[in-house]
Amino acid sequence: MFERPNISRMTGYEPGMQPAAPAIKLNTNENPLAPSDAVMAAIATITPAMLQRYPDPLAIGLRQEIARYHGCAVDQIVATNGSDELLRLAVTTFVTPGQSIGVVEPGYNLYAVLAAIQDCPLMGVPLLENWMPPEDLAERWNRAGARLALLANPHAPSGALYPVDDVVRLAAAFEGVLLVDEAYVDFVDPLRGHDLIPLIDQIPNLLLARTLSKGHSLAGLRLGYGLGTAELISPMLTKVRDSYNVDAVAQHVATATFVNSEGARRSWDFVRVERERIAGSLHARGFKTVPSEANFLLAKVPTSFGSAEALLQALAERDLYVRWLDGPRLSDCLRITIGTVAENDRLIAVLDQLVLISERGEP
Amino acid sequence: MFERPNISRMTGYEPGMQPAAPAIKLNTNENPLAPSDAVMAAIATITPAMLQRYPDPLAIGLRQEIARYHGCAVDQIVATNGSDELLRLAVTTFVTPGQSIGVVEPGYNLYAVLAAIQDCPLMGVPLLENWMPPEDLAERWNRAGARLALLANPHAPSGALYPVDDVVRLAAAFEGVLLVDEAYVDFVDPLRGHDLIPLIDQIPNLLLARTLSKGHSLAGLRLGYGLGTAELISPMLTKVRDSYNVDAVAQHVATATFVNSEGARRSWDFVRVERERIAGSLHARGFKTVPSEANFLLAKVPTSFGSAEALLQALAERDLYVRWLDGPRLSDCLRITIGTVAENDRLIAVLDQLVLISERGEP
Repeated sequence: MFERPNISRMTGYEPGMQPAAPAIKLNTNENPLAPSDAVMAAIATITPAMLQRYPDPLAIGLRQEIARYHGCAVDQIVATNGSDELLRLAVTTFVTPGQSIGVVEPGYNLYAVLAAIQDCPLMGVPLLENWMPPEDLAERWNRAGARLALLANPHAPSGALYPVDDVVRLAAAFEGVLLVDEAYVDFVDPLRGHDLIPLIDQIPNLLLARTLSKGHSLAGLRLGYGLGTAELISPMLTKVRDSYNVDAVAQHVATATFVNSEGARRSWDFVRVERERIAGSLHARGFKTVPSEANFLLAKVPTSFGSAEALLQALAERDLYVRWLDGPRLSDCLRITIGTVAENDRLIAVLDQLVLISERGEP
Repeated sequence: MFERPNISRMTGYEPGMQPAAPAIKLNTNENPLAPSDAVMAAIATITPAMLQRYPDPLAIGLRQEIARYHGCAVDQIVATNGSDELLRLAVTTFVTPGQSIGVVEPGYNLYAVLAAIQDCPLMGVPLLENWMPPEDLAERWNRAGARLALLANPHAPSGALYPVDDVVRLAAAFEGVLLVDEAYVDFVDPLRGHDLIPLIDQIPNLLLARTLSKGHSLAGLRLGYGLGTAELISPMLTKVRDSYNVDAVAQHVATATFVNSEGARRSWDFVRVERERIAGSLHARGFKTVPSEANFLLAKVPTSFGSAEALLQALAERDLYVRWLDGPRLSDCLRITIGTVAENDRLIAVLDQLVLISERGEP
């Protein structure tokens, strides 16, 4: 009755289910390992004064630690309430309602929701068969007048990695701000030498989004950040951001995780090893997966399971939750988060049970 | 270079200073007492899994507890990352860029910043000499086409309370959404029987903003919420809000504070007693204060101190921080948060020292 027409028309983002334990959650791409001892030690040192007083509005201590961690300057960083907030800040700061936002298709559903809230059309460019962007991506975004483009890299929901050199060419050719959403970048094989952070000094329209949700096992804490030139970061940091957007607990705990990131690094190694193992197990059972540099696999479900949606349902009935993202190129796939060894083994065992049931012709 | 013209033009909100201890902070309206034992007990039960997994996106457990606390329905509540977020959600949800937002003047500076971010003009209506809104407030907002009005009650920075019956009349006459920002309502004398919450069922355009920052000594935690009809709350809850806007720690700790609010209630009683005592001490020293139902006093500085700005400076040199809000009706005043007994006594003692220095003609 009172809301704006664009808000009235739109549909909100649908987060994945959060079933209670002992369900196995391979549906929302959390890190399979618990946060490090450094994190729990930080929790143990929360003081009443930390809660009673407003947090540092500029999160300077935390940003200094992030700057040290990445080797960049403090004013090249804005800390946010999860990287969701960074994405929203970029839309609010760089795109006037009515201007286009560039994305690729398929992509992360949230981007369309953010565009709808800002009353902006989406310019969605289809990915190639190999999940890479087409050569003329920047040109097509430019023709639509896009002032901002949102590109998950590694890509979601495929896990495909767009190489550094291609990102550089894309940013040079694109006339708006290129936000590369690096939510999953911690899980990229280090042998690839994939690192966009040295580029933020040189590319004025390159904005990187990071999060502690996946790589640092801190999805519950809500801590993300943006990296870019000081000029790009400044309006988000000093104008558009809610004054006290990152709470004192998140600042305190996140600082600890950057001071001591050994635990997080071990989880990345673990995920990479399990990712290869599970991809192999899935291939042996007739699934096809996209080569993934993220902590999930997009797996095409073989017809022996009926459909992806049917398999989703059968798994959920056995307390195993994965994600089905309906839509072009995705409706015959499931997105499966890499879990612990026990969780992954259980997934494969349940798939084998389901094959047996299906071979016996039972429901 | 890349930001929107309205963002480029605007100035961000300037939060009050957060000087390090042992400074006495009477400048940002935090509660003088530490959070309750229930809060610290909740902190002690944070688990690794709580941090590892995404929080409940809808914060259902917390909202159930808030609903029980206020005697309203769960779908009449949206939980937010501080009430700052609720204010922003209301602007985004109800006001199309270019449409007006109604405020009173003087008022809380943040409202103008939120309007500038959304590229909306402000329709500011001057308060009467007694800090109450004029009779024709709604009419003037309506004439400007305001779709949303933001009204702090108790008013900031005066602390004046606009009575329930007047709010009811205002909401009935105003054609947009009336957001009553009740950040300070916990400090209202209970003998006044001031309670807007029973009205949310009956008034379709009444939206209340609450926060745990002041009344519950949890400024560092960032937990606010909105109350209104389910219809008014729904678009903010299901569409415009960032998916995981309230982190798991804030949900956990805030739930505990609603389960056991005895500690918070004691702080409200304490603040009211100290408010009267300090108002008396200030009057005895030539200050004039607005009758306040909040946890601060707006005090007009007697000319013997030179100016309000000079007194602000002199206090800061003695590690005592209060707030000076430059602007019409405010530039000769200081806004002084009610502190602990020791902090308030120190303020009065320093004022007496400053008078002596000034009488001796020293700088």
